[in-house]
Amino acid sequence: MATISGRTFGSDNHAGVDPAVLAALGAANSGDAVAYGEDDASKAAVARLCAAAGAREGYLVFNGTGANVLALSLLVRPYEAVICAESSHLNVDECGAPERVLGCKLLAVPTPDGKLTPDLVATRLTGLGDEHRAQPRVLQIAQATELGTCYSLTELGQLRDFGHEHGLLIYLDGARIANAAAHLGCSLSAIAACADVLSFGGTKNGALGVEAVLVMAGGLTAGGKYHRKQVMQLASKMRFLAAQIDALLDEDRWLANARAANARASQLAAALAVVPDVRVAYPVQANGVFTDVSRDLACRLLQEWPAQVWSEAPDGRRAVLRWMTAFDTAEEDVAEVAAAISEAAARTSAEAAAVQSG
Amino acid sequence: MATISGRTFGSDNHAGVDPAVLAALGAANSGDAVAYGEDDASKAAVARLCAAAGAREGYLVFNGTGANVLALSLLVRPYEAVICAESSHLNVDECGAPERVLGCKLLAVPTPDGKLTPDLVATRLTGLGDEHRAQPRVLQIAQATELGTCYSLTELGQLRDFGHEHGLLIYLDGARIANAAAHLGCSLSAIAACADVLSFGGTKNGALGVEAVLVMAGGLTAGGKYHRKQVMQLASKMRFLAAQIDALLDEDRWLANARAANARASQLAAALAVVPDVRVAYPVQANGVFTDVSRDLACRLLQEWPAQVWSEAPDGRRAVLRWMTAFDTAEEDVAEVAAAISEAAARTSAEAAAVQSG
Amino acid sequence: MATISGRTFGSDNHAGVDPAVLAALGAANSGDAVAYGEDDASKAAVARLCAAAGAREGYLVFNGTGANVLALSLLVRPYEAVICAESSHLNVDECGAPERVLGCKLLAVPTPDGKLTPDLVATRLTGLGDEHRAQPRVLQIAQATELGTCYSLTELGQLRDFGHEHGLLIYLDGARIANAAAHLGCSLSAIAACADVLSFGGTKNGALGVEAVLVMAGGLTAGGKYHRKQVMQLASKMRFLAAQIDALLDEDRWLANARAANARASQLAAALAVVPDVRVAYPVQANGVFTDVSRDLACRLLQEWPAQVWSEAPDGRRAVLRWMTAFDTAEEDVAEVAAAISEAAARTSAEAAAVQSG
Amino acid sequence: MATISGRTFGSDNHAGVDPAVLAALGAANSGDAVAYGEDDASKAAVARLCAAAGAREGYLVFNGTGANVLALSLLVRPYEAVICAESSHLNVDECGAPERVLGCKLLAVPTPDGKLTPDLVATRLTGLGDEHRAQPRVLQIAQATELGTCYSLTELGQLRDFGHEHGLLIYLDGARIANAAAHLGCSLSAIAACADVLSFGGTKNGALGVEAVLVMAGGLTAGGKYHRKQVMQLASKMRFLAAQIDALLDEDRWLANARAANARASQLAAALAVVPDVRVAYPVQANGVFTDVSRDLACRLLQEWPAQVWSEAPDGRRAVLRWMTAFDTAEEDVAEVAAAISEAAARTSAEAAAVQSG
Repeated sequence: MATISGRTFGSDNHAGVDPAVLAALGAANSGDAVAYGEDDASKAAVARLCAAAGAREGYLVFNGTGANVLALSLLVRPYEAVICAESSHLNVDECGAPERVLGCKLLAVPTPDGKLTPDLVATRLTGLGDEHRAQPRVLQIAQATELGTCYSLTELGQLRDFGHEHGLLIYLDGARIANAAAHLGCSLSAIAACADVLSFGGTKNGALGVEAVLVMAGGLTAGGKYHRKQVMQLASKMRFLAAQIDALLDEDRWLANARAANARASQLAAALAVVPDVRVAYPVQANGVFTDVSRDLACRLLQEWPAQVWSEAPDGRRAVLRWMTAFDTAEEDVAEVAAAISEAAARTSAEAAAVQSG
Repeated sequence: MATISGRTFGSDNHAGVDPAVLAALGAANSGDAVAYGEDDASKAAVARLCAAAGAREGYLVFNGTGANVLALSLLVRPYEAVICAESSHLNVDECGAPERVLGCKLLAVPTPDGKLTPDLVATRLTGLGDEHRAQPRVLQIAQATELGTCYSLTELGQLRDFGHEHGLLIYLDGARIANAAAHLGCSLSAIAACADVLSFGGTKNGALGVEAVLVMAGGLTAGGKYHRKQVMQLASKMRFLAAQIDALLDEDRWLANARAANARASQLAAALAVVPDVRVAYPVQANGVFTDVSRDLACRLLQEWPAQVWSEAPDGRRAVLRWMTAFDTAEEDVAEVAAAISEAAARTSAEAAAVQSG
Repeated sequence: MATISGRTFGSDNHAGVDPAVLAALGAANSGDAVAYGEDDASKAAVARLCAAAGAREGYLVFNGTGANVLALSLLVRPYEAVICAESSHLNVDECGAPERVLGCKLLAVPTPDGKLTPDLVATRLTGLGDEHRAQPRVLQIAQATELGTCYSLTELGQLRDFGHEHGLLIYLDGARIANAAAHLGCSLSAIAACADVLSFGGTKNGALGVEAVLVMAGGLTAGGKYHRKQVMQLASKMRFLAAQIDALLDEDRWLANARAANARASQLAAALAVVPDVRVAYPVQANGVFTDVSRDLACRLLQEWPAQVWSEAPDGRRAVLRWMTAFDTAEEDVAEVAAAISEAAARTSAEAAAVQSG
Repeated sequence: MATISGRTFGSDNHAGVDPAVLAALGAANSGDAVAYGEDDASKAAVARLCAAAGAREGYLVFNGTGANVLALSLLVRPYEAVICAESSHLNVDECGAPERVLGCKLLAVPTPDGKLTPDLVATRLTGLGDEHRAQPRVLQIAQATELGTCYSLTELGQLRDFGHEHGLLIYLDGARIANAAAHLGCSLSAIAACADVLSFGGTKNGALGVEAVLVMAGGLTAGGKYHRKQVMQLASKMRFLAAQIDALLDEDRWLANARAANARASQLAAALAVVPDVRVAYPVQANGVFTDVSRDLACRLLQEWPAQVWSEAPDGRRAVLRWMTAFDTAEEDVAEVAAAISEAAARTSAEAAAVQSG
């Protein structure tokens, strides 16, 4: 497996931990602390994150699947349904955890770019009041989306208003909310204000492993602590999750890390824009670049890189590969991977031409 | 809240992280690593732990609830039942997570000391083949138990044989398996050989947060990785769970840590044995001391210490308090807490005598 | 298998259908009717039953398991628990359906006679507010109980008040509520007033197969129709469930049928009271007689009769057998089965004496 | 609500019960019978149905939702997924019961006519072996489909073979299997041979309420009886479900009833073929006719008829209405409803023309 100075571009989860986060873990390791978040440091970190988001209540959890399932546990009964983009992590990449643990149905809507719109949501608002149909109750929005795109605040506000008008609660999956805030140049609370419940992703942002579920709306806070325990997301040595959150909030590190990752993705997209046979498939608004390439180029690249094959054309002739940057990706890393892709494209073209003319 | 040099004796989860574990986290933080356990370091750590236990397959997870639920996911269908001690963590302290996520019934058996016996298990082997009854399928054993007691290897072997004869699979909850191994002076594999699936607890042993599910028996490995993902226990930056396991296995640190904790509990029990009005409720075979004290003494102690109230006599006149030691509890800490308890007992007795004679 | 004029005494479910119910099915079979309970006849039958019980809302379902699970679906979230008698049908005879479909924990309390008391319930009100514990939310009462005993209205009222004071909702399992009303000489609404949700059992009362879930308390009616569909209890040709309810309500047939069954059970108990070696184990307050007999007599009886073995003494020397009467059991049937039991007892004694003296 | 001689054409569930079924219920009502299907008559009826289908095992249940959920309980673990047509009853009309009770994900595939093909199924065979994805395990086929179309035996065999080649088990939803057999002119076993598990629908075929789950493949029979109990489908007075099955099997009544219903649907389709503005949307191969009509005509018809609105064009200008026939629909009934639709169409056209020319 090729890497550029140790960078794989395979996922923002391939990255390690921000040294400031590691330092915070060490600093937190002093004496005993009451477990399960009842210590002062854990309470303070949660309060600080809630203040930043304008949230009423917060729950630290281990990972994104846990955040998604806990958040939805606060919002749905088993006969209710969650409207989400067909390409969403919730629908595609949770191995059916929501269905298993919540017992509810996802109503997945195809989208051109990972983003829902009121019109797209409206297509799923059918069978209301009909006992044969799972009843739409939650509108799930990922910000940034799984395709590396972001909603504008106006778009988010419109979705929230449309949802509320139609009796839907808004869950915003913020596994990459920092990247979205960095892209929009807005505060955490500006995004959070468009949700009833949201998650705040730390892991992809430089943490070792921590996410938070933040509750914005009154009336949704009942039972959260029991749900967290039941969905296996209650850490005993909670201070070490809290310390990670603190480290990310210190000096707005969460934002700086996201800005860095976003900038590297933009750099990569710009470099690839001039490469023949490589088409950037979606607007690059976070830290992912999706390249639409020929099958031959895809095969060549995958021999060297652990890029994720995002989709394949039905005729098998083209594929979309995903390239992710992280908080610690360097400019030179990007320059090198861009050059490597460009060179692979050139070689693939040359071979194709040789076959053609042969 | 009182502490002795920062020690609360409230739980082995109140302890921090073994410095060697912290160092291992730092050492693992170099460059990218493929996520979700597909990196070489994670695979090696799991293989190493499996080798130590004689296991076929291992899964690292975040916490004890996750380990319990994942382990049982490998063993039961929803119509099957898990026989366990009434006092077990699984039955009492998981907020019903097994019922929610597995959908199965626990058949809880009262025990004198947290330990099951073939005779006790036999009381639940009823209704076999009757479709109105949940069908016993798993015998859950905690080693050490929630009451700080340990099974001997002979007892474990008898339970395993009895279970297998009656069509039961054995799940051994090893959240404190290191303490049991230290008590018995045996290897990990000697205990593991008595189980079909077991958990290996790292967190209470000095880790930041990691447990493992180990599969001993053939035919039980299907679906494990999907179950782990569905029960929200798949870490993205897995290398940092793996590093903790490695640090605990290095130089048999897991065993040394457990021995230290056990020794401090024995020291505390010995010190309390001579204190009037304090009765040690269960044999001290791991790192917990359960003290049966008068209500007045309990109240006095709880004003100062975050000891857990384990149980109360129906008439309310006595209560059992739990005192836990950890890998990093010092001899002087124990001496001081023993002195504090002794003093509180003396003061409580004196007050009672004054009231009496008054 | 022996029967007396076709009567087995094995269960009130062994009985057939009241001819009036069959006639009602025929009468309902005229032309089309909108499905799923939206026809006038179904609505009227439900309204009529609700009026009789003083209920706000009613749902017809197929069977008792369905009624129990649907009722509890209205009352609990997965992290909440149901306090019930250890001997209750809910705990023992539903194959874990509540755990599977509701995901919640049952907190089973041993009782001397199948009846809960506030003191017994109080033993399970622990761990309130502790996220590690499933939170008690429902007090489940069976009226009549699985052991053929009935609560007085005073007892029921005390349980309801105690439950409400402690934040518990009351679910009354009325699979044999008619037998209880017959025993107490009270109205359906008098019993129903002690519950927040209850079931009304038709099947054991002479129906082909219909039960109802009745909602007494405001605020509990949300989602009922979706839950019924999800728990697979929504009948398409609902008019034929409704017709059964109508037939049972006509001329208070439900009460007459229960009175008849109860009277036969009392007759049997009286007849057995004078038989040596046969002890009636519980007060006979409904339509079941539980006989505590020697192992030898139990074996002899079970060769001839499909009586249910309710329990066995730990030493195996005695067993409790259950004998049930139904709406259509005749006085002569009871006389004959009593004579048969008496004769078997005499023969068993004689053989034992022969062995003794041999 | 208009009806023709009491016929609504709204659903085959609006029909009553075949008089032969009612008679069978009466005949079964003699003396006691052991409950829960342990009586000889119930065993015989199940054996008879199994013989007709070539099945190894059969379970009688209350309704179609129960049959679908029980069948899938035999086939999937929670991390596995069910591939089905997007328009299938399983996906659309079960209120999320499969997700709630099985905890598994449905992978719904859009189809032109309700029928899956190997190519359509193949689009969902992605992410195999990837723990982030629910793993496709069951191919669900409805025969007849929810859109009134039928697979040929060749098509069924191809799907089965394709499924088996790709590790999928086949579940055939036979809520209207009789209509499919009538259309194909084949035996029950010919269809059943294409499935690993199937359901046999009685209710829409003239029963009061009974469906069966039939297990074809070895190795799938473990646990069925427990699953049936847990999913609340175990009838106590089973003989009355069995009697319905017997009545339908007697003299091949199931086939005669389906043939009658199918013939009436064909008659209706033929009559409507000549009506301007009414387009029959799908091939009429069972007992349903789907009419694609203008919004104005749809509104007019719905004022009079309880036809189901199956779908609406995105622009709102046309809608598809469903008309169902049943075992007892008469030729004259169809002639009258066809005339009514034709007249409504003519009146709607005339009004539109008047507006146009006005």
